[in-house]
Amino acid sequence: MTTTVHSFDTAIDLADNGIGHYIGQTTPEWANMVGPFGGVTAAAIIRAIERHRDRIGEPVALTVNYLAPVTDGSFDITVRAARTNRTNQHWTAEMTQEHGLTTTATAVFGVRRDAWSDTEATMPAAPDPETLTPTTLPVPVPWMRNYEMHYVDGGVPTEPAESTSSTTTLWTRQRPARALDFAALSALSDVFYPRVFLRRGRMLPAGTVSLTTYFHVDGAELAGHGTDYVLASAHAQRFARGYFDQTAQIWGRDATLLATSHQIVYYKD
Amino acid sequence: MTTTVHSFDTAIDLADNGIGHYIGQTTPEWANMVGPFGGVTAAAIIRAIERHRDRIGEPVALTVNYLAPVTDGSFDITVRAARTNRTNQHWTAEMTQEHGLTTTATAVFGVRRDAWSDTEATMPAAPDPETLTPTTLPVPVPWMRNYEMHYVDGGVPTEPAESTSSTTTLWTRQRPARALDFAALSALSDVFYPRVFLRRGRMLPAGTVSLTTYFHVDGAELAGHGTDYVLASAHAQRFARGYFDQTAQIWGRDATLLATSHQIVYYKD
Repeated sequence: MTTTVHSFDTAIDLADNGIGHYIGQTTPEWANMVGPFGGVTAAAIIRAIERHRDRIGEPVALTVNYLAPVTDGSFDITVRAARTNRTNQHWTAEMTQEHGLTTTATAVFGVRRDAWSDTEATMPAAPDPETLTPTTLPVPVPWMRNYEMHYVDGGVPTEPAESTSSTTTLWTRQRPARALDFAALSALSDVFYPRVFLRRGRMLPAGTVSLTTYFHVDGAELAGHGTDYVLASAHAQRFARGYFDQTAQIWGRDATLLATSHQIVYYKD
Repeated sequence: MTTTVHSFDTAIDLADNGIGHYIGQTTPEWANMVGPFGGVTAAAIIRAIERHRDRIGEPVALTVNYLAPVTDGSFDITVRAARTNRTNQHWTAEMTQEHGLTTTATAVFGVRRDAWSDTEATMPAAPDPETLTPTTLPVPVPWMRNYEMHYVDGGVPTEPAESTSSTTTLWTRQRPARALDFAALSALSDVFYPRVFLRRGRMLPAGTVSLTTYFHVDGAELAGHGTDYVLASAHAQRFARGYFDQTAQIWGRDATLLATSHQIVYYKD
């Protein structure tokens, strides 16, 4: 019998000393233009905390700060439970390589309880993913090949044309299909190409500086999603002299709002 | 001559050893129901970084995690420049008291450059603050007395009545008026009462767990705002079994989007 390990699991595979220190390896499949895809870095940090023996609960919030490009090769992740409360736990994390600190992060894990609940946001209207043509990218960015992407709105600009809207909405899932878990959801929160490309109708230097994701489901709900597509939608609120924000929603096909995510992005234009 | 120090400046006044360690004191004027107003804690952290001798640029992003209540008395803030790049700088910060760690934070400071810029979000329609009655609160929460609050929409519920919308929009500024700076803007990003009160039409246990603010102006633009009101608007996207998110905009009266802010909030219902 041959078991094939999914490239995403390889990319976030961590050697573990059991007390908060981990070693991982970048993989060519998850490379971005410079260093690895930011989403896979976020995923590795979530995975490191999940595997810590003192961890309680599941991800509620994650902030990842991208200090410097991660270079090809091995990386260390150190995580620390900064405070354990009755129903939640606060974590700090750092990723380092030989050349120094590349990433800092904080996370909140928590135990969900029965409480009045409601989804107030409305899922964007979208035809089923099966009815939409998958996008073949105009430029070769390795990590993007790991996602099926069916754009509903705001696809990658293929010819120079400015847009008045920064909104992109797409159905997406990993390729090959892989069951959604918190690591994969963390990566999905960074699945959008930079909003400034859409507004300006062209590629230009841009990179995520800080990413914050809020998780709205527990592991059992997430497991129920299986390998199906998610509907991911993002837009910017302001582009201000070198930094723009992006705010995003990740929906299950059954209109479950799985996560909301925000980032601030450096750009040069 | 008598000089009166503004209560906000007293609340974020820090004794400084010059290399990243600060000591501050909580003040009764900025108390919340348990511990100080989360916004003033965020402001003290921004102020600590601003005063560090190695700091370059101005605030671009701030994430503050509220681990445990800050008790009345003195607190220590430690800040560290985790990485200095050419045009931005990443910081980590921790607040501690005798009983342990109360707050962790990360921040990005940066230097803004000339670049194509645009505000894509639309300022909520609102009559001028002078035409609206300021709110007198139904419950005594000390820090709220430090803000003039003229609710446009979604005021504090005064009788039990559920709402289908979690949106609150208000004109607000410090009382007495004080020129807006990054510390004050950081505090304003937490000026909203918990969204779950509005949806449920009553107060219940709730507290911010993690707050992220993105700043869209530099210090000169902020200084131009002076002591005028800001229009602050917030709503939730999902209330999910013990945690809800809040996403907010802070606008200048001249339709400058000063900051966008997000938080995840614990609630019990």
